[in-house]
Amino acid sequence: MSKQVPGKFVTFEGVEGGGKSSNIAAVKTFLEAQGKQVVTTREPGGTPLAEEIRTTLLRPRDEPVDEMAELLLVFAARAQHFNTFIKPALAKGTWVLCDRFTDATYAYQGAGRGLSVDTIATLETLVQGDVRPDLTLLFDLDVGLGLERARGRGALDRFEQQEQVFFERIRTLYLQRAHTESYYRLVDASASIETVRADVQTIITQFLSC
Amino acid sequence: MSKQVPGKFVTFEGVEGGGKSSNIAAVKTFLEAQGKQVVTTREPGGTPLAEEIRTTLLRPRDEPVDEMAELLLVFAARAQHFNTFIKPALAKGTWVLCDRFTDATYAYQGAGRGLSVDTIATLETLVQGDVRPDLTLLFDLDVGLGLERARGRGALDRFEQQEQVFFERIRTLYLQRAHTESYYRLVDASASIETVRADVQTIITQFLSC
Ligand SMILES: Nc1ncnc2c1ncn2[C@@H]1O[C@H](COP(=O)(O)OP(=O)(O)OP(=O)(O)O)[C@@H](O)[C@H]1O
Ligand SMILES: Nc1ncnc2c1ncn2[C@@H]1O[C@H](COP(=O)(O)OP(=O)(O)OP(=O)(O)O)[C@@H](O)[C@H]1O
Ligand SMILES: [Mg+2]
Ligand SMILES: [Mg+2]
Repeated sequence: MSKQVPGKFVTFEGVEGGGKSSNIAAVKTFLEAQGKQVVTTREPGGTPLAEEIRTTLLRPRDEPVDEMAELLLVFAARAQHFNTFIKPALAKGTWVLCDRFTDATYAYQGAGRGLSVDTIATLETLVQGDVRPDLTLLFDLDVGLGLERARGRGALDRFEQQEQVFFERIRTLYLQRAHTESYYRLVDASASIETVRADVQTIITQFLSC
Repeated sequence: MSKQVPGKFVTFEGVEGGGKSSNIAAVKTFLEAQGKQVVTTREPGGTPLAEEIRTTLLRPRDEPVDEMAELLLVFAARAQHFNTFIKPALAKGTWVLCDRFTDATYAYQGAGRGLSVDTIATLETLVQGDVRPDLTLLFDLDVGLGLERARGRGALDRFEQQEQVFFERIRTLYLQRAHTESYYRLVDASASIETVRADVQTIITQFLSC
């Protein structure tokens, strides 16, 4: 009996409105057509408990939220999602497509809130061991354009209510990581929906051929 | 102008049903009679966000809860409570009486769930820096007796549903820490309510005279 090949872990990252959620289903369909087992999921969230934590994180509230409390909530949801859903799926050969993951924590809680890279890295290792994405699609675009797209969706959550400069710091951090982390692929998300979809498919095709 | 003397941080610990919640109000009354500013609070909880996390932690659920997720939820609630409530109160000279704190994490998530002391200590330092209780009252009693007392209160939460052996490990861990941590004082919680109250008052009186 041959040993099961582990599935690939693909994450979708970027500032608000870049098209992460819009593209993840198309990637699933494309990969399934190549004969892969695929699941899509998201962070924070992905299990009932982790979705409950997501609700706690996103709800606007009068009480000022301590940055460390926010960071630990993010990683609590991640521990539940990673250990009970992502890791078992990868182990049995399923591809996992995840809408945001730990790179979003470096961006939002690190660059956005100002928590140190060391603190985030400590929690990353505590929760994930040495597991990192195999591929990260960074949907990059002008922050103003992304917010315009995203804010068409209705009431703003606790993050969406932040000022534009918060998201500028996040975009910059993502672009820095795209240079230093080898698993990043950059997508020009300011292009049309059709162009973005085609670019994403090209990246996935290249990744499959490696 | 004289520098404000920081308040004292007093925590109430022990297995279920030892009398922590029953005695905290009496200690507050006693300290106020000595002219102290005093607040009582509890963990997990103590602020609206932290109480929301408490509800998430305690609710029984079908989904198996990952131990690391549980630990990070505990420390997320603690970060919010510690940074926005406990630390500012201590800084302005108020005594803080807290029903459970990080010693309960060493007991429940460490000895109970099996997470390592090192992992808990890392999070403790991340969240609290070098702040530790000035005094911990350990309400110690036979686990069976404590559960009998506590289970008189109605529906069981996710922890109360554990088997007796889980609480035996917790009691043992607390007793070990009572030997190694200098801020512990042991209370024989199997005695009558009146005896326990008198013992607690003696300990507080001794602590005040130091
Ligand atoms: N390339 C595109 N051109 C124009 N509109 C787009 C494009 N891609 C997505 N949109 C639209 O922009 C909005 C935001 O897209 P989507 O929700 O996929 O972004 P997202 O990256 O998931 O955002 P968020 O970070 O807020 O979850 C949606 O209304 C979507 O239809
Ligand atoms: N010394 C005592 N003798 C008899 N009954 C007691 C004594 N102390 C407390 N009780 C009763 O035992 C029950 C549990 O006490 P209490 O709620 O104060 O314990 P606790 O340590 O806060 O428990 P938990 O860890 O479950 O919060 C209550 O009904 C209380 O009235
Ligand atoms: Mg989205
Ligand atoms: Mg109690």
